[in-house]
Amino acid sequence: MSTLDRWNAKTKPPGSLGKIEWIATRLAAIEQTDHPQATPAVALLFAADHGVHAEGVSPYPQAVTAQMVSNIVHGGAASSVLAKLHGIEHFVIDVGVASEIAPHPRLVNRAIRRSTHNFAVQPAMSEGEFERVLAIGRECINAQAAQARVVLVGEMGIANTSSASAVAAALLGLPAHEITGAGTGLDATGITHKVAVIDAALALHTDRDPRAVLRCLGGFEIVAMCGAYLEASAQRKALLIDGFIATVALLAAARMDPTVLDVCIFSHQSSERGHRAVLNDLSAEPLLSLGMRLGEATGALMAYPLLVQSCTLLAEMATFAEAAVDNRAGSLG
Amino acid sequence: MSTLDRWNAKTKPPGSLGKIEWIATRLAAIEQTDHPQATPAVALLFAADHGVHAEGVSPYPQAVTAQMVSNIVHGGAASSVLAKLHGIEHFVIDVGVASEIAPHPRLVNRAIRRSTHNFAVQPAMSEGEFERVLAIGRECINAQAAQARVVLVGEMGIANTSSASAVAAALLGLPAHEITGAGTGLDATGITHKVAVIDAALALHTDRDPRAVLRCLGGFEIVAMCGAYLEASAQRKALLIDGFIATVALLAAARMDPTVLDVCIFSHQSSERGHRAVLNDLSAEPLLSLGMRLGEATGALMAYPLLVQSCTLLAEMATFAEAAVDNRAGSLG
Repeated sequence: MSTLDRWNAKTKPPGSLGKIEWIATRLAAIEQTDHPQATPAVALLFAADHGVHAEGVSPYPQAVTAQMVSNIVHGGAASSVLAKLHGIEHFVIDVGVASEIAPHPRLVNRAIRRSTHNFAVQPAMSEGEFERVLAIGRECINAQAAQARVVLVGEMGIANTSSASAVAAALLGLPAHEITGAGTGLDATGITHKVAVIDAALALHTDRDPRAVLRCLGGFEIVAMCGAYLEASAQRKALLIDGFIATVALLAAARMDPTVLDVCIFSHQSSERGHRAVLNDLSAEPLLSLGMRLGEATGALMAYPLLVQSCTLLAEMATFAEAAVDNRAGSLG
Repeated sequence: MSTLDRWNAKTKPPGSLGKIEWIATRLAAIEQTDHPQATPAVALLFAADHGVHAEGVSPYPQAVTAQMVSNIVHGGAASSVLAKLHGIEHFVIDVGVASEIAPHPRLVNRAIRRSTHNFAVQPAMSEGEFERVLAIGRECINAQAAQARVVLVGEMGIANTSSASAVAAALLGLPAHEITGAGTGLDATGITHKVAVIDAALALHTDRDPRAVLRCLGGFEIVAMCGAYLEASAQRKALLIDGFIATVALLAAARMDPTVLDVCIFSHQSSERGHRAVLNDLSAEPLLSLGMRLGEATGALMAYPLLVQSCTLLAEMATFAEAAVDNRAGSLG
């Protein structure tokens, strides 16, 4: 019986659970089963620093990246609180944080280099570094997400909305001001400066091939996210896509291999300015719209209970026949 | 420290959890505490039948109300699956189902009469019945929800979108066609007929006092929901408001006592046609918009994890000081 027929046999008017029915139907297609499951899930947070921070594009000091990674692995960050609440394993993969972080079982050290170069003056990384960090993202699906049916990919990196905005503007062919927002909380003057930095970088790095865009304007964590998406897709694991930076990484991945979109569920509409344009390009309609803009996979974690609820309803609701409930004339059940 | 100050001390950019921060702040105000909690919660589903069913306003036979009540208490309905998943106690209160239902620990028999009268030809209930069922709704807050901080109120009653549409049209001063939708799944011809039945009833019952509107056009479960809302508000319990019918019952309650709105959080935007107009009248912005239209408190149950997540984040996230994370200049923390 198809997943749609299974839903229509359940004791409810057909289609009355709306997008909640779509979720389990989508997971069934991704997992290639009639009995989709949202567990086990894993959250992989890629962390790195950004040379472009030197241009004054963030209100936070660069040291915050390492401090927040430590906070995440010790359970104090929003993402760690939510992952624990949902029983989701979570890991931080350091792919290029600027300062040293004390070892921790949840921290995976795969640092390429301590921070990318400043893309305002040179490519963020070399071709060799790009290929290595893309492969690291892929490897994490095998290492940390081997058991997972659902993968939540997030990031931590002070100044990484600048990198993500630059990548999105380059891939969408838009001027920076249409895609660049407040990030962690710039004021209007700060945003104007950030736009100028990105526009200058777009003029400096003119190759619009997605790999070149990522290498010149991306961050190590953004490239690693790309790699993780591509490998998850190859293994038919469902991807619950987080907010602005996560969606920009997916945009780049989709330009390399459009089939990655077949395993995606979009969790939330961020309040970061550029997110809508990127979602529109991917024809994506996220589940939630709650004005969040935190990163760290927090939007995906917030939406995750919807996946659990959908799969549990499909598995446990009685059918009209099982419950001896009269259906309307001409209905399945 | 105010709840806003507590949020701003946490390791995240201020406001970056968007409406999720608003939820715990709202619960703190309702519960009059600095440490709001979303547990324990209870779901109270009021069930009754409707005389107007005789006019052919629903595609389902009236017997389905009793059958679905049985399904709910035995765990097979959407609401029972979600309540169990979330560890929420749930009860069905029979305030006027047309046929007998086998006793069950989750089923509370407070039936006024087996079904209301047909409001197309006479008032749905007498003044005495109205007062009695309003009091029953209040009493359930003391009986079944005594321990609860958060109350989810839902309904089951074949043909009750006709009653709710009539009540909403009367209270908002709108013609039936602006508020009447497909309910459990009428086609265009069916909706046209339903609109005609409601317009005729609005012409027959002309008193627009909210109590008169409820008595003439309401259902036993809709009046009981009103009573439950008013008592929960008096006891400063938070109300997580479900979809169309639940919001219409709240509209009526708010016309009797506007302070009831001070304890409400709106869970979801239903795809039932009239819901938006009722929400607009109450200046309400629901948390979710997922195209659901099932009733049974399923929208409230679907949104409930957002309340849990919000309170858990506020309780468990580290502050900048606790986690030794640098804040931006001039910030709290």
